[in-house]
Amino acid sequence: MSVLIAASSGVAAVLTDLFVVLFAAKLGDELFRRLRQPTIVGEILAGVLVGPAVLGLVQPGDVLEVFAELGVVFLLFWVGLETRLSDLREVGATAVSVGLLGVAIPFAGGISLGAALGESTATSLFIGAALVATSVGITSAVLIELGVLERRASRTILGAAIVDDILALLLVAVAAGVAAEGGVDIVSIAVTAAVALAFVAFVALGGTRLLQARPALLHAPRFSESPLLPAVIICLGLAAFAAQIGLAAIIGAFLAGMIIAETREQHPIEEEVAPLYAFFPPFFFAFIGLELSLGALGDGRALLLLAGVTALAVVTKFAGAYLGARRMGRREATFVGVGMVPRGEVGIIVAGIGNATGTIDAELFAIIVAMSVLTTLIVPPVLRRLAAAPAARS
Amino acid sequence: MSVLIAASSGVAAVLTDLFVVLFAAKLGDELFRRLRQPTIVGEILAGVLVGPAVLGLVQPGDVLEVFAELGVVFLLFWVGLETRLSDLREVGATAVSVGLLGVAIPFAGGISLGAALGESTATSLFIGAALVATSVGITSAVLIELGVLERRASRTILGAAIVDDILALLLVAVAAGVAAEGGVDIVSIAVTAAVALAFVAFVALGGTRLLQARPALLHAPRFSESPLLPAVIICLGLAAFAAQIGLAAIIGAFLAGMIIAETREQHPIEEEVAPLYAFFPPFFFAFIGLELSLGALGDGRALLLLAGVTALAVVTKFAGAYLGARRMGRREATFVGVGMVPRGEVGIIVAGIGNATGTIDAELFAIIVAMSVLTTLIVPPVLRRLAAAPAARS
Repeated sequence: MSVLIAASSGVAAVLTDLFVVLFAAKLGDELFRRLRQPTIVGEILAGVLVGPAVLGLVQPGDVLEVFAELGVVFLLFWVGLETRLSDLREVGATAVSVGLLGVAIPFAGGISLGAALGESTATSLFIGAALVATSVGITSAVLIELGVLERRASRTILGAAIVDDILALLLVAVAAGVAAEGGVDIVSIAVTAAVALAFVAFVALGGTRLLQARPALLHAPRFSESPLLPAVIICLGLAAFAAQIGLAAIIGAFLAGMIIAETREQHPIEEEVAPLYAFFPPFFFAFIGLELSLGALGDGRALLLLAGVTALAVVTKFAGAYLGARRMGRREATFVGVGMVPRGEVGIIVAGIGNATGTIDAELFAIIVAMSVLTTLIVPPVLRRLAAAPAARS
Repeated sequence: MSVLIAASSGVAAVLTDLFVVLFAAKLGDELFRRLRQPTIVGEILAGVLVGPAVLGLVQPGDVLEVFAELGVVFLLFWVGLETRLSDLREVGATAVSVGLLGVAIPFAGGISLGAALGESTATSLFIGAALVATSVGITSAVLIELGVLERRASRTILGAAIVDDILALLLVAVAAGVAAEGGVDIVSIAVTAAVALAFVAFVALGGTRLLQARPALLHAPRFSESPLLPAVIICLGLAAFAAQIGLAAIIGAFLAGMIIAETREQHPIEEEVAPLYAFFPPFFFAFIGLELSLGALGDGRALLLLAGVTALAVVTKFAGAYLGARRMGRREATFVGVGMVPRGEVGIIVAGIGNATGTIDAELFAIIVAMSVLTTLIVPPVLRRLAAAPAARS
C-alpha cells in the first residue's frame, strides 16, 4: 500500500493543496463580505493563515504559482473584456503621465534609500525597481467589486498600468544588467523596449481591426460550440507571448480581452468566462499571502526597515501618480494615486529576480515581499471609501 | 535582459505549454467533429502530435499532469451531476457483476501473459493490474457526446467503474506488496478495502441525505454569490480525499457531483460548471497522447508484444464485462462490454508505479502506455456505432 500511496501522492497532495487554498480563500471572502470589507483582503489573509507564515498547511509551490498566474491572467482578461480601446485612447495622455511619474518617483526613492543604507549600486537599482511596478490585479479586483470599472479614473489606472509595466520591464533589465555585468547594454534595452511597444501597439490596433472586420474568427457556424475556448486560447496565447518577451503575462491577457470586446458581442463570452473568473483569481490573492514569511522579519531593525520601505513605496507612488493625474482634479487624482499603490505580486517577482542573482539578500527579500503584501492590504479599504464619496463619482 | 527572461521563463514556458496544448486539442476536436468522428480521439491525437512522439513541442510535466487530472475530475464531476443515486441503485447488481468479472478476467489474462513471457511473479502481477482498470473518463466523454448518459447501459458502466476502481486499487496494492516485500500484507489490504468501501458508502448515502435535508448548505442567502465555488470546493475536497486513501480522485469527484445533483436544483450549477468542463478536459485527453513514446517501440518484437497485449486487454475486458451484463440482453451487454474497454490514464498510472519500483522495464512500460492509448482510440467509434443502432436504444 505504501508504494501505491507514495506513487499517487503527487496528485493527492496537489489536489489537497488546491482544495485547502480555495476553501480558505472562499471563507475569507465570505467573512470579509459580512464585515463589509473588501473581499480580496479576506482572500489574501486566508493565504497568510494557511501558508508558512501561520499554520503552514500549504507551501507555495510551482503548481500553485501557475494557478495564481492564471488567476491574475483571467482577472485581467475579464477587465479587458470590459474595456474598449476608445476608452483607453480617451485617457491616453493622462495615463502616460501617470505611468511615467508613477515610475520615476518610486524608482528615485528606492535608489536613494539603497544609497542611504549603504547598499551597492546594483542592490539600490533593484530596490528601486521593486518599488516601481504596480500590481494592477489588486486594483482591478477592487474596481470590479465596487462597480466602478467604467469610471474615467479607473480607465486611467488601467492605461497607466500598461505604461508602468513596460517601464518596469526596462528598469529591471537595467538593474539585472548592472548586477550581472556591472553595466548596461543600451542596444539590448532599446530592443526590449521596441519589442514591448510593438507588441502592445500591434495587438491593440491590429487585433482589434482584425476581429472587428472578421468577428466570425471567434464565433460563428465555423465553430460548432461556444466562443469560450477560442477566446481563452487567444487569451493564453497573448499572455504567453507577452511573458516570452519579458512583459507581464497579464498585459497580453488584458489586450486579448480588449480585442475580443471589440467584436461587440462580448456578453455571451463574459457569461461563459465568469466561472473561470470565479475559479482562478482566489488562487492569485491567496498566493500573495502564502508568499509572506514572518521568520525573516524577527528583529526590530527589519520591522523598522519594513515600515520605512512601505511608507516610501506608498508615498512615492501616490505622489507620482497624483501628479501625473492632477489635471483630472483633486478627487479623481487621489483615486488614481491610491489605485496605483499596490505592488502585490510584481514587487515580489522583481525582488525574487534580485534574490536569485544574489543582489537582494534574504532579509531584504522578505521585507520587499511584506511591503508588497502590506500595500495590497492597505489599498482596497481606502479605494472603497474614496469610491463611496458622492462627489467623487464620475 | 537574459537574467530577467530566465527568471520569468518559468511562467512564460508554462503559459506557452498550456496554450499549445489547448490550441492543438481544440483544432483536433474541430477537425474530428467535421469528419463526424468522436472529438476526444481528435484531442488525444493532437496530444500525440505536439508531444514527444511526433513534434516534441510540449513535454508532459507536473503542471500539465495537474491540468489533466483536473480535466478528468471535472469530467466525472459533470457526469455525477447528471446521475442520481437511485439510477445507480437500479443497476447495482449488474454493475457489481460487470465490475467483478471485468476485473477478474483481464487480471488472469495479464498474469498468464506474464508467465508465458517468463516474467517474475511481481512483474506478472503488475501486467495483470495494468490490464484491469477501466478509464471511465474516456467512456463518459463519449457517452456525453452521444447524448446517451441516461441510458441504462451507461449507468451500468458508471456503477461498474466504481467497483472496478476499488478492485484495481486492491490488486495494485497486492502487486506492489509482492514487488516490495515478496508477499502480501493481508491486514493492510483489508484495511485499504474497508476504508475505500466506507468512503464510497458514507459519501453516497450520508452526503446525499445531508444535502437533501439542508440544500441551503450549498446555495442560499447564506452564500452571497452563485453556488459554483461551494460546489467546486466539495468536488476538489472529495477528489483529494479519495486520492489520499489511494482511490482514483475521479471517484470522489463523481460522488461529489452525484450528491450535489440530489439537491434537485443542479441546473444552475451545471450551467456554471460548463465552462470549467469546457476548459480542463481537453488537457486530460491531450495528455494521454503526450505520454505516448514511440522511441521504445522501435523493434518488431515490441510491436508484436504491443499487438498481443492490446488484443488481450480488449478481449478479456470485453468478455468479462459482457458476461457480467449478459442478463441485460445481447445488445446492451455488448454496449457495456465495449464501454469498459478503455484503459486510458489508469493503465498508464499502474504501469508507472511498476516502472518506479523497478518491476516494469522501459520497454514494457512503453507497451502498456501504447496499449492504453490504443484502447482509448478504438472504443469511441465503436460505441458511437453501437449507440446509433436503432434497436439498441433503451
